[in-house]
Amino acid sequence: MNLFDSILKPTLLLDERAVRANIRRMALKARSAGVAFRPHFKTHQSLEIGVWFREEGVEQITVSSLDMAEYFGHNGWNDITLAFSTNLRQLAGLDQLAGRIRLGLLVESIETVAALGSGCQSSLDIWIKVDAGAGRTGLAWDRPELALELAQQVRRFPQLRLRGLLTHAGNTYTAPNPPAAAEVFAAANGRMNLLRNELQGRGLDPLLVSVGDTPGCSAAGDFQGVDEIRPGNFVFFDALQYKIGACAFEDIAVALACPVVALHPEKGEAVIYGGAIHLSKDTLSWQGERVYGLVCRVENGRWGSPLPGGVVARISQEHGVLRLEAKDLAGLRVGDLVCVLPAHSCLTAQCMGRYLSLDGHWIEMMRA
Amino acid sequence: MNLFDSILKPTLLLDERAVRANIRRMALKARSAGVAFRPHFKTHQSLEIGVWFREEGVEQITVSSLDMAEYFGHNGWNDITLAFSTNLRQLAGLDQLAGRIRLGLLVESIETVAALGSGCQSSLDIWIKVDAGAGRTGLAWDRPELALELAQQVRRFPQLRLRGLLTHAGNTYTAPNPPAAAEVFAAANGRMNLLRNELQGRGLDPLLVSVGDTPGCSAAGDFQGVDEIRPGNFVFFDALQYKIGACAFEDIAVALACPVVALHPEKGEAVIYGGAIHLSKDTLSWQGERVYGLVCRVENGRWGSPLPGGVVARISQEHGVLRLEAKDLAGLRVGDLVCVLPAHSCLTAQCMGRYLSLDGHWIEMMRA
Repeated sequence: MNLFDSILKPTLLLDERAVRANIRRMALKARSAGVAFRPHFKTHQSLEIGVWFREEGVEQITVSSLDMAEYFGHNGWNDITLAFSTNLRQLAGLDQLAGRIRLGLLVESIETVAALGSGCQSSLDIWIKVDAGAGRTGLAWDRPELALELAQQVRRFPQLRLRGLLTHAGNTYTAPNPPAAAEVFAAANGRMNLLRNELQGRGLDPLLVSVGDTPGCSAAGDFQGVDEIRPGNFVFFDALQYKIGACAFEDIAVALACPVVALHPEKGEAVIYGGAIHLSKDTLSWQGERVYGLVCRVENGRWGSPLPGGVVARISQEHGVLRLEAKDLAGLRVGDLVCVLPAHSCLTAQCMGRYLSLDGHWIEMMRA
Repeated sequence: MNLFDSILKPTLLLDERAVRANIRRMALKARSAGVAFRPHFKTHQSLEIGVWFREEGVEQITVSSLDMAEYFGHNGWNDITLAFSTNLRQLAGLDQLAGRIRLGLLVESIETVAALGSGCQSSLDIWIKVDAGAGRTGLAWDRPELALELAQQVRRFPQLRLRGLLTHAGNTYTAPNPPAAAEVFAAANGRMNLLRNELQGRGLDPLLVSVGDTPGCSAAGDFQGVDEIRPGNFVFFDALQYKIGACAFEDIAVALACPVVALHPEKGEAVIYGGAIHLSKDTLSWQGERVYGLVCRVENGRWGSPLPGGVVARISQEHGVLRLEAKDLAGLRVGDLVCVLPAHSCLTAQCMGRYLSLDGHWIEMMRA
């Protein structure tokens, strides 16, 4: 049976060839630049896709929760950074996992360091979480006295190994184009180096700088001042990355196949079985409006290019409302499949829980 | 151990007393009004909570997918309406389930009726899906000739039983207050009755009118012209329903407990472990801005009232950024728990996959 004929309900399709090309491109870029590549596995959350990374030489990874660290740590990954400010309520679990693998944690308060130092027996890699302009969390890059105080606190505990400074320049996500993303990324990296120089000037041992966001890592011409990159989304990309210019359309490696359940040509709309529980409610700004994804037809055993003007305009729990041009609507029938390029592939993958490879096999991921 | 001491990561708390009171209130309201009560189970998706409905006399339910219909249909529920325009790709599964239980489906196109008529052997209840003003999907309420044509097509197939007209006045969700929600609801019900009268005047058998949305069903003083109500969200309510005035704060029956991982008093912010994969990315407009939830402290073994000015201001995959007043921030420590009243409890429940009752037991729900 044709793959698409077998699809009865919203299904997240994955193009293995595109995924492997995305991994290879970023691994090569890191190798050429002489920086460590510690990809973020929160995007795909899959042991099978992890193997594709390993085949490109990846040994060190990033995750965003203890659950995810345990999932990969119990399945062959021995060097994991949990890139999320440490949750003190999970100290026992962190300590236990750190007894089995090399585990890196993020700190941004004296209290957290003190709790790790007194509550954990296992050796831990410690990264100071820095806010280099994104504004989400971390110590302000221009307050070196705070980072110094934290570093000194870390050094009080022999099992805590201070590795360096870590940031996520999430503000690249609002860049309108690759040069703008590269500029935001370079600015953040410059700030990280100012802070590093300041700390090393005050007698701290050499510190590494770890950064990571897909728009910045994709757009950057070089990784000056960077020791390690941790991008995640690049493994799949999505409509937002396409809009920023972080990828070509052909690089987008996942799409949600959705049955058409109603046609409203008088309104220029079609309704699909595919809503917030499949795509998530994340949006991107596209041609002046917030949309939930871009719409493609099925062509030659894959999804085709996005239909001009074809967007997921509204969404509820299980419904998606597409706005389409008249000629595209005229070509659709109730019961057809369309493919949606999600606004944000990380959240769509999390919603869907597994992937259907274009070669017809299911790729499992972590289930909470 | 204290319940809250046992919580290590984002956890969806459920107050059984509030849930049961919400069910009882709506069941009584329907009974007093003499309308059938067919609650939508997409909000809770739980067999255990289903039992609480049964204890209030509920025998007929609504679901939003074949998966959900099978989950409840294989576990004791024998009369289910799948309130989603029929997905023709799942015809075989629908037919099979309809051979075991009484199953109601929604139609809004001739093609769908023809496919059901020729492809299904089992008896099916058929509802014509009507757009009574919400604009999502369905036949326009003011185009009776379309509904008539559809009804005549249904009557060609002996196994299809035309039950009536069904709508969801989703436009009550933007009402600023209960009288406005009641007005939108009454307007939709009036339109449904105009259409019913028109169809019956043209010789169709008596048709039922089925409606259902939590703001409308909560705010309405009566259910004039309505035969059946199908609200779902009322079982839990949430911050949006509280804002509309569809419930009191005390009626909100779920909240997401989240560990505090960072404090930024200089910005008036705290960071929690609790993000888009826990709350969903749904928002409500609150005091002039889009927010992802309202923030409460833990008090007396439950969540307290929302902190004035306390909101989930920004969100990413696993992070939530809270904005709090200085005095509330001053009372927080890294490692504390806060509780978030979600913008939209249906999506938060779907993200979390199970509930922790305040009495300490886990309540399971359907997993896709």
